[in-house]
Amino acid sequence: MPPLRDGPTEPRDEDMREEFQADLNEVSRLMVTMAEAVREAMRKATKALLTADLKAAEAVIERDHEVDELNSQVEAKVADTIARQAPVASDLRMVITALHISADLERMGDLAEHVAKTAKRRHPSPAVPAELRPVFQGMAEVADQMAESIANLLAKPDAELAAKLEHQDDEIDELERKLFKIMLDDDWPYGAETAIDGALLGRFYERYADHAVNVGEQLVYLITGEPVGDQS
Amino acid sequence: MPPLRDGPTEPRDEDMREEFQADLNEVSRLMVTMAEAVREAMRKATKALLTADLKAAEAVIERDHEVDELNSQVEAKVADTIARQAPVASDLRMVITALHISADLERMGDLAEHVAKTAKRRHPSPAVPAELRPVFQGMAEVADQMAESIANLLAKPDAELAAKLEHQDDEIDELERKLFKIMLDDDWPYGAETAIDGALLGRFYERYADHAVNVGEQLVYLITGEPVGDQS
Repeated sequence: MPPLRDGPTEPRDEDMREEFQADLNEVSRLMVTMAEAVREAMRKATKALLTADLKAAEAVIERDHEVDELNSQVEAKVADTIARQAPVASDLRMVITALHISADLERMGDLAEHVAKTAKRRHPSPAVPAELRPVFQGMAEVADQMAESIANLLAKPDAELAAKLEHQDDEIDELERKLFKIMLDDDWPYGAETAIDGALLGRFYERYADHAVNVGEQLVYLITGEPVGDQS
Repeated sequence: MPPLRDGPTEPRDEDMREEFQADLNEVSRLMVTMAEAVREAMRKATKALLTADLKAAEAVIERDHEVDELNSQVEAKVADTIARQAPVASDLRMVITALHISADLERMGDLAEHVAKTAKRRHPSPAVPAELRPVFQGMAEVADQMAESIANLLAKPDAELAAKLEHQDDEIDELERKLFKIMLDDDWPYGAETAIDGALLGRFYERYADHAVNVGEQLVYLITGEPVGDQS
């Protein structure tokens, strides 16, 4: 975690302070690695989806456990930090927030895996017909920018950049509406299966973006001390 | 939280011990209330869905913030408990686990709200055609049993009952497969819109059940100290 301070902290032994900062840095490092991993996972899952690339799909599925493992490491490190350092006030808030962020990142990895599994299930056919490809390309691009922002924010917090995630989430929602509009058009030439795949895939990207917004909100909360509304 | 002990705890002042137990009881009480609320929300959302009951749908949507509020109360109480009591070992594990359980319950409330919103969006038409109603009825019944188990488990932990949640989750997955089978049949008389609604609704119940399993796993972890595999 970055060295955020929103007010005077408890007086502490200087060595303890350094140890605590080292713990936070370790948690921060793990979460940046997670953010980069879930970004890469969604990039690869999208490639699998749009080019019916089985190898890419399988790589994403095989590697999801790495993100789960990083999440477990964050949880263990946070528990260890609380037990050893007994943080209070903003220090405590920071380590508990790390738990939430890590859980969101883990879920983003799961959603990338869901996209990859859909691509794999339909292989060698493409899961997404040509008419829907530009929409998914658009959703994937915004989702990728969001994941990139999160990785940057975890390394260097910035309330303005975090707030931008909300706008990007609106773009994703707009693209999802466009997706439904295409599928519900009278001229839609495909059957129920393609529509179902399309709807679920749209939801995977949309949920991925929601979790990215959650991470941004948690970071804004750390920076400003003001909670932001619930994302559901 | 129930008075779980999996080994000798740190020596503590007896008053502190009592205070800590009182804190846990308060967290436990909040979570039981949450579990009951999300159970009631999904019951009512299902009623809204299967009988096109607009009033029931709106009641669920209006009351979701209550579960969010309870989740915030759990988070605040846990942070306060950690700051005041500086728990370690199994005590610390217990309060951190409460955060995870509360987050799962909050998400279950969101999913009930999603079902209600779908019912509302299609009103006065039913969102679910007659052919799919028995499957959703089945999913809703199992989901309801799972929510009931969780409320009971939070009040009185029982590793065996918690493990049973996994089997119920399998039933839900089986019903979801059945749902897809019906919609993908050549004789399926409805268009893309109904199939999309059906698929997303199926996923809402399935995710609700997944979160119930997560809660069960967290409780087993508290009881046995053994982590159970990741649910994704």
